[in-house]
Amino acid sequence: MGKYPVSPLAPASFPALPVIDGVRFATAQAGVRYAGRTDVMLALLDPGSVVAGVFTRSATRSANVLDCQAKIAGESDQGAAIIVNSGNSNAFTGKAGEGSVAAICEAVAATTGLPAERVFTSSTGVIGERLPHDRITAKVDELFGALDAGGIEAAANAIMTTDTFPKGATASIEVDGKTVKIAGMAKGSGMIAPDMATMLVYIFTDAKIARADLQALTSGISDKTFNCITVDSDTSTSDTLLMAATGASGVDVTGNADFAAAMHGVFLDLAHQVVKDGEGATKFVTVNVTGAASDADARTHAMAIANSPLIKTAVAGEDPNWGRVVMAVGKSGAAADRDLLSIRFGEVLVAENGWVAPSYKEEDGAALMKQPEIEINVDIGLGQGTATVWTCDLTHGYISINADYRS
Amino acid sequence: MGKYPVSPLAPASFPALPVIDGVRFATAQAGVRYAGRTDVMLALLDPGSVVAGVFTRSATRSANVLDCQAKIAGESDQGAAIIVNSGNSNAFTGKAGEGSVAAICEAVAATTGLPAERVFTSSTGVIGERLPHDRITAKVDELFGALDAGGIEAAANAIMTTDTFPKGATASIEVDGKTVKIAGMAKGSGMIAPDMATMLVYIFTDAKIARADLQALTSGISDKTFNCITVDSDTSTSDTLLMAATGASGVDVTGNADFAAAMHGVFLDLAHQVVKDGEGATKFVTVNVTGAASDADARTHAMAIANSPLIKTAVAGEDPNWGRVVMAVGKSGAAADRDLLSIRFGEVLVAENGWVAPSYKEEDGAALMKQPEIEINVDIGLGQGTATVWTCDLTHGYISINADYRS
Repeated sequence: MGKYPVSPLAPASFPALPVIDGVRFATAQAGVRYAGRTDVMLALLDPGSVVAGVFTRSATRSANVLDCQAKIAGESDQGAAIIVNSGNSNAFTGKAGEGSVAAICEAVAATTGLPAERVFTSSTGVIGERLPHDRITAKVDELFGALDAGGIEAAANAIMTTDTFPKGATASIEVDGKTVKIAGMAKGSGMIAPDMATMLVYIFTDAKIARADLQALTSGISDKTFNCITVDSDTSTSDTLLMAATGASGVDVTGNADFAAAMHGVFLDLAHQVVKDGEGATKFVTVNVTGAASDADARTHAMAIANSPLIKTAVAGEDPNWGRVVMAVGKSGAAADRDLLSIRFGEVLVAENGWVAPSYKEEDGAALMKQPEIEINVDIGLGQGTATVWTCDLTHGYISINADYRS
Repeated sequence: MGKYPVSPLAPASFPALPVIDGVRFATAQAGVRYAGRTDVMLALLDPGSVVAGVFTRSATRSANVLDCQAKIAGESDQGAAIIVNSGNSNAFTGKAGEGSVAAICEAVAATTGLPAERVFTSSTGVIGERLPHDRITAKVDELFGALDAGGIEAAANAIMTTDTFPKGATASIEVDGKTVKIAGMAKGSGMIAPDMATMLVYIFTDAKIARADLQALTSGISDKTFNCITVDSDTSTSDTLLMAATGASGVDVTGNADFAAAMHGVFLDLAHQVVKDGEGATKFVTVNVTGAASDADARTHAMAIANSPLIKTAVAGEDPNWGRVVMAVGKSGAAADRDLLSIRFGEVLVAENGWVAPSYKEEDGAALMKQPEIEINVDIGLGQGTATVWTCDLTHGYISINADYRS
């Protein structure tokens, strides 16, 4: 933190996040790896809260992720705790890693009175080093004593690793004259930062909703937001998203489309912030694919475009290199026909009918590529499938962060 | 050509390639795009030659590739011609591109007396600009008059685009006291170079072999060589490999394992040279995966490792970052178990049993990563599947070539 300049795509400031009744936060300096900064956060959820989650599908996922997955479907009225450390990911630490998770859960359970099955942990930082969990368990009493309903911004700071800015987002809806609020935080700066794994996301609402419904919403919205972003195609061993509903507003949002839309907005805002803090990012790129044979094909094309090093470097160079978009569609493996393809940069039609568009002027494309936010719009011309994904450019900054470094 | 320094991984010199009886070469300066250098080559194969080929599977492949694919299975005793230009790829040029291919084939047919169905073309260079094929057809008579059995090195130079060195390889075998020779050339510098597409490969032998047998050998060996290399995961719209056997040695090599091994050696040598001329490459990386559930799974893991930007930047930084290898195996989608994985850099055991190996010393890994050629060896611990792929590192050079450029 602080080693690299703040991303030029960062928001002007951290948003004002509302208090979510039923959840309190605390942070501490446990000294897991970093000195002079907070590196552990505790979120305590009141009895009656429900927790849903989505996790990395990596086959080499961390002990924390495996533990969270085993617990996430558990129903309980007793409340829950989320404890997160930065500096060490506890990933690929063998049996010792499982022991660290158990020790932390037991310490939080002992202090809070919760059963260990209601304690969720995440760790983010170096891979393959034993987590010094004693430093964390030694801070649990201090954390418990410092819990504060207004502590979410401090918590967002404590979980940062190579992030260049803390990430928060909020939304609210009115239901029958009552307000339901959502507030969340995320960390992530590349799918994996240099030795500092992970995207972590924690979102809280005072809505009342059954766990199964919250899980369905969380999974569905994640698929359209966090699962549609890519910085470098690399996937963390620790990615975790937890969504908690305290019920404190007393408003039941089951089946409420406004609530789903508000959740979607918060998820998307945080997902975009992760891309905008992508390692070395100078451009935010939206890839829209339409007209594919299916939605799955559209996603395959969109991800091929978003992950192509040649397209990402062209964007970095402000080069409207549509030939590379043709290449990426061609290599994706999904159905395409060269002569039915059309490509737009923003609103500018670049190519159609298997060739550059007669109306296209290189200077129009070049002017568009100078913007900090760029849209690549591709119509495959075969069907009704659509997909949108978000990514950033590939710059010298990415190489500097990940290669100009000796262990 | 000449804009970037010669790759540090380049061989000391172009190999001495033998004359292959039954094929002659010529080059010319057609001025398709480049000035002051040769940019077109003609190879003329005597009657009795057979030609096999493999081509890009891109859904947006060029007019030349489609034309070659339509012709490749044709049987003929009349001989054949291969004509290749650099500077313009004739890819994504719509109907005009098909017209250019036809015009070139007709001109070569008229001059050589071959039917147009026996003329194979390739084009490599910028995408999406109309090929000025008149400049090429105007040179066909000059090319025909300059044919020379010893012209293969000049031909290898004429087909270069952003390559930093010409690529050649050779092998020979003895059969019943007679010598059978193989000589080949390749171009390629990244799966796609900046606006300069393509890997092109042309290999010649004086062996006698039926077309179907030569095709089977060519396809099988390509799968283990050219289809096992990756520079940046991006796939050209124009990749073409043509393998021609003139029969001039009089030696029938049908079913001859030595001949297959010699062909394999030439294919592999050229494939490695393409990786060693990868854009910005400073390290040559061999990824060996063993113990996977199947060969297909092993290939999936190996390609996930070889294409991971985080691993490629770690190699560039001479960082023995085995955590990123764990990450890549985890994300690949093929079967893996964190606790059965073992990872070696060269001979150095780095990780096993789900954790760093007790014997591993960081300085051993670091010393190994300073070598120009690096082996990443991963045993999945699940089965008998194996795969080997080759790649290079991801450096500031790649970004400079592909991004520090304005159209």
